[in-house]
Amino acid sequence: MTEDQLRQILREIRSGALSDDQALETLRKLPFEDLGFANVDHHRTLRQGFPEVIYGAGKTAEHVERIVQSMLPGNHNILVTRASTEQYERVKKTVPSAEFHDVARAIVVQRDMTVRGKGTVFVVSAGTSDIPVAEEAIVTLKVMGNPVEQLYDVGVSGLHRLLHRRERLAAARVVIVVAGMEGALPSVVGGLVSAPVITVPTSIGYGASFGGVTALLSMLNSCASNVTVVNIDNGFGAGMVASLINRA
Amino acid sequence: MTEDQLRQILREIRSGALSDDQALETLRKLPFEDLGFANVDHHRTLRQGFPEVIYGAGKTAEHVERIVQSMLPGNHNILVTRASTEQYERVKKTVPSAEFHDVARAIVVQRDMTVRGKGTVFVVSAGTSDIPVAEEAIVTLKVMGNPVEQLYDVGVSGLHRLLHRRERLAAARVVIVVAGMEGALPSVVGGLVSAPVITVPTSIGYGASFGGVTALLSMLNSCASNVTVVNIDNGFGAGMVASLINRA
Amino acid sequence: MTEDQLRQILREIRSGALSDDQALETLRKLPFEDLGFANVDHHRTLRQGFPEVIYGAGKTAEHVERIVQSMLPGNHNILVTRASTEQYERVKKTVPSAEFHDVARAIVVQRDMTVRGKGTVFVVSAGTSDIPVAEEAIVTLKVMGNPVEQLYDVGVSGLHRLLHRRERLAAARVVIVVAGMEGALPSVVGGLVSAPVITVPTSIGYGASFGGVTALLSMLNSCASNVTVVNIDNGFGAGMVASLINRA
Amino acid sequence: MTEDQLRQILREIRSGALSDDQALETLRKLPFEDLGFANVDHHRTLRQGFPEVIYGAGKTAEHVERIVQSMLPGNHNILVTRASTEQYERVKKTVPSAEFHDVARAIVVQRDMTVRGKGTVFVVSAGTSDIPVAEEAIVTLKVMGNPVEQLYDVGVSGLHRLLHRRERLAAARVVIVVAGMEGALPSVVGGLVSAPVITVPTSIGYGASFGGVTALLSMLNSCASNVTVVNIDNGFGAGMVASLINRA
Amino acid sequence: MTEDQLRQILREIRSGALSDDQALETLRKLPFEDLGFANVDHHRTLRQGFPEVIYGAGKTAEHVERIVQSMLPGNHNILVTRASTEQYERVKKTVPSAEFHDVARAIVVQRDMTVRGKGTVFVVSAGTSDIPVAEEAIVTLKVMGNPVEQLYDVGVSGLHRLLHRRERLAAARVVIVVAGMEGALPSVVGGLVSAPVITVPTSIGYGASFGGVTALLSMLNSCASNVTVVNIDNGFGAGMVASLINRA
Amino acid sequence: MTEDQLRQILREIRSGALSDDQALETLRKLPFEDLGFANVDHHRTLRQGFPEVIYGAGKTAEHVERIVQSMLPGNHNILVTRASTEQYERVKKTVPSAEFHDVARAIVVQRDMTVRGKGTVFVVSAGTSDIPVAEEAIVTLKVMGNPVEQLYDVGVSGLHRLLHRRERLAAARVVIVVAGMEGALPSVVGGLVSAPVITVPTSIGYGASFGGVTALLSMLNSCASNVTVVNIDNGFGAGMVASLINRA
Amino acid sequence: MTEDQLRQILREIRSGALSDDQALETLRKLPFEDLGFANVDHHRTLRQGFPEVIYGAGKTAEHVERIVQSMLPGNHNILVTRASTEQYERVKKTVPSAEFHDVARAIVVQRDMTVRGKGTVFVVSAGTSDIPVAEEAIVTLKVMGNPVEQLYDVGVSGLHRLLHRRERLAAARVVIVVAGMEGALPSVVGGLVSAPVITVPTSIGYGASFGGVTALLSMLNSCASNVTVVNIDNGFGAGMVASLINRA
Amino acid sequence: MTEDQLRQILREIRSGALSDDQALETLRKLPFEDLGFANVDHHRTLRQGFPEVIYGAGKTAEHVERIVQSMLPGNHNILVTRASTEQYERVKKTVPSAEFHDVARAIVVQRDMTVRGKGTVFVVSAGTSDIPVAEEAIVTLKVMGNPVEQLYDVGVSGLHRLLHRRERLAAARVVIVVAGMEGALPSVVGGLVSAPVITVPTSIGYGASFGGVTALLSMLNSCASNVTVVNIDNGFGAGMVASLINRA
Repeated sequence: MTEDQLRQILREIRSGALSDDQALETLRKLPFEDLGFANVDHHRTLRQGFPEVIYGAGKTAEHVERIVQSMLPGNHNILVTRASTEQYERVKKTVPSAEFHDVARAIVVQRDMTVRGKGTVFVVSAGTSDIPVAEEAIVTLKVMGNPVEQLYDVGVSGLHRLLHRRERLAAARVVIVVAGMEGALPSVVGGLVSAPVITVPTSIGYGASFGGVTALLSMLNSCASNVTVVNIDNGFGAGMVASLINRA
Repeated sequence: MTEDQLRQILREIRSGALSDDQALETLRKLPFEDLGFANVDHHRTLRQGFPEVIYGAGKTAEHVERIVQSMLPGNHNILVTRASTEQYERVKKTVPSAEFHDVARAIVVQRDMTVRGKGTVFVVSAGTSDIPVAEEAIVTLKVMGNPVEQLYDVGVSGLHRLLHRRERLAAARVVIVVAGMEGALPSVVGGLVSAPVITVPTSIGYGASFGGVTALLSMLNSCASNVTVVNIDNGFGAGMVASLINRA
Repeated sequence: MTEDQLRQILREIRSGALSDDQALETLRKLPFEDLGFANVDHHRTLRQGFPEVIYGAGKTAEHVERIVQSMLPGNHNILVTRASTEQYERVKKTVPSAEFHDVARAIVVQRDMTVRGKGTVFVVSAGTSDIPVAEEAIVTLKVMGNPVEQLYDVGVSGLHRLLHRRERLAAARVVIVVAGMEGALPSVVGGLVSAPVITVPTSIGYGASFGGVTALLSMLNSCASNVTVVNIDNGFGAGMVASLINRA
Repeated sequence: MTEDQLRQILREIRSGALSDDQALETLRKLPFEDLGFANVDHHRTLRQGFPEVIYGAGKTAEHVERIVQSMLPGNHNILVTRASTEQYERVKKTVPSAEFHDVARAIVVQRDMTVRGKGTVFVVSAGTSDIPVAEEAIVTLKVMGNPVEQLYDVGVSGLHRLLHRRERLAAARVVIVVAGMEGALPSVVGGLVSAPVITVPTSIGYGASFGGVTALLSMLNSCASNVTVVNIDNGFGAGMVASLINRA
Repeated sequence: MTEDQLRQILREIRSGALSDDQALETLRKLPFEDLGFANVDHHRTLRQGFPEVIYGAGKTAEHVERIVQSMLPGNHNILVTRASTEQYERVKKTVPSAEFHDVARAIVVQRDMTVRGKGTVFVVSAGTSDIPVAEEAIVTLKVMGNPVEQLYDVGVSGLHRLLHRRERLAAARVVIVVAGMEGALPSVVGGLVSAPVITVPTSIGYGASFGGVTALLSMLNSCASNVTVVNIDNGFGAGMVASLINRA
Repeated sequence: MTEDQLRQILREIRSGALSDDQALETLRKLPFEDLGFANVDHHRTLRQGFPEVIYGAGKTAEHVERIVQSMLPGNHNILVTRASTEQYERVKKTVPSAEFHDVARAIVVQRDMTVRGKGTVFVVSAGTSDIPVAEEAIVTLKVMGNPVEQLYDVGVSGLHRLLHRRERLAAARVVIVVAGMEGALPSVVGGLVSAPVITVPTSIGYGASFGGVTALLSMLNSCASNVTVVNIDNGFGAGMVASLINRA
Repeated sequence: MTEDQLRQILREIRSGALSDDQALETLRKLPFEDLGFANVDHHRTLRQGFPEVIYGAGKTAEHVERIVQSMLPGNHNILVTRASTEQYERVKKTVPSAEFHDVARAIVVQRDMTVRGKGTVFVVSAGTSDIPVAEEAIVTLKVMGNPVEQLYDVGVSGLHRLLHRRERLAAARVVIVVAGMEGALPSVVGGLVSAPVITVPTSIGYGASFGGVTALLSMLNSCASNVTVVNIDNGFGAGMVASLINRA
Repeated sequence: MTEDQLRQILREIRSGALSDDQALETLRKLPFEDLGFANVDHHRTLRQGFPEVIYGAGKTAEHVERIVQSMLPGNHNILVTRASTEQYERVKKTVPSAEFHDVARAIVVQRDMTVRGKGTVFVVSAGTSDIPVAEEAIVTLKVMGNPVEQLYDVGVSGLHRLLHRRERLAAARVVIVVAGMEGALPSVVGGLVSAPVITVPTSIGYGASFGGVTALLSMLNSCASNVTVVNIDNGFGAGMVASLINRA
């Protein structure tokens, strides 16, 4: 329902075209979205320069293409997560400027280059196998206008590379830590910075890593009090929350 | 090692009192804390106006009292979490200004009233039994200088009270949601605001709530992408992270 | 044993062809089904206009075809759940009127179109990936003669579409909610209606969704008191129970 | 906001006391409950003759008393679940007609005796230790105006008592089965009736019964397709859902 | 070490060829198997007319063939469990009398037809998908010389077929119950007989059956006190234990 | 229904007092127990010389006393498991011959001393803390007329005491193994004997023993193929099954 | 059986008092302990200067006292773990030199002060609440003659205290790390030393620490390859293994 | 930073080219690795004659080849674990002396044949399916210069083969036990030796073995006090820790 329709109702109330009882009934049934409620998502998109995220997994290439097309009229960025090359090939035909980040498994249509983050988001990951999840976070961060720094392959049992970057790390406004196995890295990083640390457990590991559950539990129990956790392998979620914090 | 000691080493290098090899050896062995590393915690405390948090559970009243006393020389606030009345009685003898928040089970010595948060932190809790955890978050937020608003007893199956406060909620800079049982509230709140939402699962519930695990899993799987999670019943942690975000 | 056989026994008792002891022995050994016990299933089928359900998974196409054939003499509907296209191809040769619902993975032979439900059953599902389970529920509902309404892709973090349909929802006699991930939708729906709400957790999700366990636990702990739960992905079961309620 | 207030707004629109823009703003901010949304709970209560349920566990006797008092003006029934004798003693002072069902741990103020259920609800329980949960279901059923039959102590390994009551069971409009241990009873009962069967796993048992989880899993996997499940020990929930079905 | 070797040691002791100290040392080092300990397995095989069981899974066809060949000199039966057709093809070349039970996935070389069981072993299974496990039990029982009766596809929610066979069931010396899903059948069967009931949970099921864990827990918690449990899908184990009981 | 009543029905059929239709209806409604079905439990008791077992936990002393009294008219043995001293004091007043086995927590009224077991049942337990469970098994065995041998405190890491009794063990007709912690003892015992081995995991242990789950899983996965498992701490169940095997 | 008895057998063989067959039979039945097998434990004790460990939990004070008394004739040390003050009071009456380590909950009778460890064992613990477990390890180490160093209260989020002691740590021959919560400390320590690191998860923590399971899983998945794990809270076990390594 | 660079800084301090403040700043920022910290890994490699381990799983053949090439300049051994034949083919082109252990799935470039272990490491495995994990341990042990003995296919239910090798076992300096299923072997082995026993649970098994969790739990709860545990299937880790112990 548009504002015009609402003004029309007002006119009908004034003109008596709607009786008191009819008016009451009409008001009572006003669809919620007309009262601003339904537009939260839309407003958020406009305010944040981030239009829509499509979860690619399980969708056909055609389906993804059609959704992307429907978003073109706006001028904001588009992100497809968990995307396949097949989906990308299809999208590219319609939107030649679309790019594919294969490690992150993400399709990006970047039209708005505004820097919106107030500071840098630092992404640290523990092992080479955690990189796809870290890259998903980074693609999300960039498509939302954040300056990003990254440090990969930081083992807790070989901390020097982390300590070497300590000052850059401490300068970040938000830190994302991606780790599988025992998930100990977040506690160490949490102790080095006073920024909020968002941690992402990954499903990488063998034996009793249980598809990321060990890392998840470890992060939830971190002794560092500036640490929060998102779901296993949820690089996108970490990127989203970090962006929101970095813009605030 | 103080800066004075380090300057003394420099003087000995210059005077030749330390040979090259001796100097190399001395430098190689410099304790890490002398290089600024060890002072992270201290610096963080000073910069944030928040000195030290004591986890009260399992400590004797005497032990808590002694730690609190050792912190008095500074001028920052002191927070004892999971505290008992017995611990409070003891602390109060030494520090008459200490206050006890019995619902939150926290002792607070508030000496620094500076408002440090840039906006409001909104704390929502689902049921009356989640209140102790929500109160722990609020005490933490206040002792760290945040303006706080709160809304208690918001059921997902009776959303109107939440929707009624929608505008205040949307104006908050950070939102904390405390919920047990099925932990569905965070997804609803996450959809109403664009601020970061920190969720705290609580161990309240019966049957298959498994001491908070159901709420925890539910929150980790939230379909709202601005949601992160801290440990079960960890109101303090949520308050800490929200404070860090609110100051950034 | 037919009634005729039973009357024959009576005759033999009367005629003395069966002595007292023989009669006692005969009665003692009467197969249970002859006493009405065994016919419960059959009676239920006849009374409800729903003959037989075949669980297709793990059966060969031939096996399914043969079972369907054996059911043709009656005049009721036939439903094969968890069916494959291969099974369908085979059944179609024998029963040309058989239809395949590929999203629901169900073969239906609909011969009885009687409307048996007293009201509408409303099926709500949370995400696009929950649709196969929702469709299985809908196919089941239709084959059992229920008027059905449906609303797909209702996110808890974007409630307006649900609230928009609130009146239709409130008018339903039974509601089925299908959801994966955090399973929060049932609590919200449960709060909007006073009809019984049957919830189906789905195995869709990633990270700590654990193949539907998170949604299952969340639903069992729902704060709405009109909610019950069936097994993970059990769209058929939800459709069955909803049909029974709707006919009562 | 009352209807009177809404009519006042209409008058002001008509009189021009509210400009178009003011009117738009006013309408946009109408609290949701004024549009009928918030009154769902209240309407449900009035329509069903069931006012309010208080979860007694963890509340002080004073708190329970105060809530009960605030409900007295209406004329519907009041139910306090998981209540203590102490809470009852307190409530009784204010409401002498209050009754205590000690096995069910429930306080009942029954003022409305209307029979609302269209048929009988049959409650079956497996062992003597499941009785408190079964009684909670029965108290809930009665306070909501349902005719109730019950059968206690029905072991799966001694089915005759169940089979003996088979006809009464088959005549019920809804069946509730309460069982701990291996939770096998629901499948047997489910096979004997064509009514919906609501099952309640109980936390009774030892060894690998895991506080009701074994019974819960068993019930979820029941081979009978008319079975749904509520949370462990949730006799109240089973009673609620059965009442809703029995009134529909 | 053979008895001959032991007698040789005795001779050397007597002749003084072994000094006291040498003799002590020799005795102290006597390999355990020479003392009868190591031969337990062999003796058991001979006494029971059951030579050796080969667990086929994960072994190459050649490996299985070679093990079977090494067992041919004896005259007892040979059983390969979890066998593949490929393994069977290979074994058949060497041992033309080998038979393959494809449902049970077992290769049998039956050379000893002696009936060793004192009574009948009755095998009951719940669903068609439990049949492979039930067949593994039956093949094991037959190869060990037990008279076997069987009853398949006995649903708890349709007990009449089971009750119909009640007398045969009650006459069995041992009963094996194979069931997946909710695993309720064993309790019902356990209540009908006074023979020991060995139950086998199967990994068949969907949703919250968790690969047999639900059935396993249900069986362990059976209210019938004549029930014991073997591992999930372990038809062979059930057959073995039943054979031992039936011979005792 | 007694045989007399059934003969009366026969007479009425013969005399024509019951018409065909009336007779049919009467036969159809014959209560199941009258057909022998309901008397299974009773017959089992009489045939086995074991009347009734009362699960004492959670029952009042009065309740236990009353049940015991109602069993006195028969002449068989009575066993109360999980009994308290309070229950015993009460029972003793009525039945002076009642004995209390405090380690086993069992009340026994032994009136029938007949030896019914064909051989010896051997009970082995791993640690001193497993003894109460082992004793419950032994009391059960004795009250059912089995000769019993026992061997306590047999550690897997100190096998000599077990091996020392190897011959007695091998002579047993059934073996019960009670073990907590890692539950390794059953595999070792299973390898030493060819009798059926019934294992009871106990809830004794600390750390990752998880209240007996580790022992339970270990026993289910035993590499010895003559091993079956009963529920955690279920000494009574093990004694029951062993008795049934030993009588067969 | 003593060596004397064995020599007696030899004499009888030589003298012909034992025939060949009798000798064979006698040898075959030689109790295992006589062949050296049974004395493993005893020999280990003598060789290692460590006689016997008593697990105190669940034993009466009298029982502990009696066991300690029976060990007095030897001259080695005695250790009672999980001991109570009551047990200590009792033991002290008999053995005045017995000492009680109340934090470690251990009674020690130290009579042999020999240093047997070849190097130092370093015990690191994460939090103050882990100290009882660390102390149990230290008491065990000392009673077995190891030089011990310790470092308590080392948080992963404040590594400087650990790094400060890095050289002492690197000089240790074995390192024990005791940690609860997220169990991240072992990975950091493992990276700093090349000695074997034995880790002990503790049951300390709240929320999703699950009584030590999180720390246990974290340690098992440590990225440091010199880390092994003992059971939750098993300080004694860690001390034992470290002692064995340190003596080798 | 090289020592040369550090000496250059010293020169600049002495010459006054660096002021006091500049020198302080420079020293404060010295990268940690320059202070010896970062070289721990490297030093360990040099001291132990073991350069680097590459975890092959998930890496491309090219990636593995490139890492191996970068390690060639040193003269130590190279180990690729979880390697594929494809990776091996590629490495072999560059390093013809590379060998592939296909059962262990390991590539080895052995250039340093020094024996570094002070004694023998004995590797025991329970079943044929545990051999790959045992072989990974053995390859690791050999590449690190340990004399190795092995004993495969030792069942707990047939202990004689183990007891036969008891003396060799007792002579080992470290023992590794690899076992799946119920994981009982470590307790038996632990009781036979006084050396440290490192146990590796394997993911082999079926039914309730849960991918190694049963064996893992069983080993953690071993009643033998010389037993520690590494992660499921972690043969490499066991080999590493055993090597460290054997060199100390």
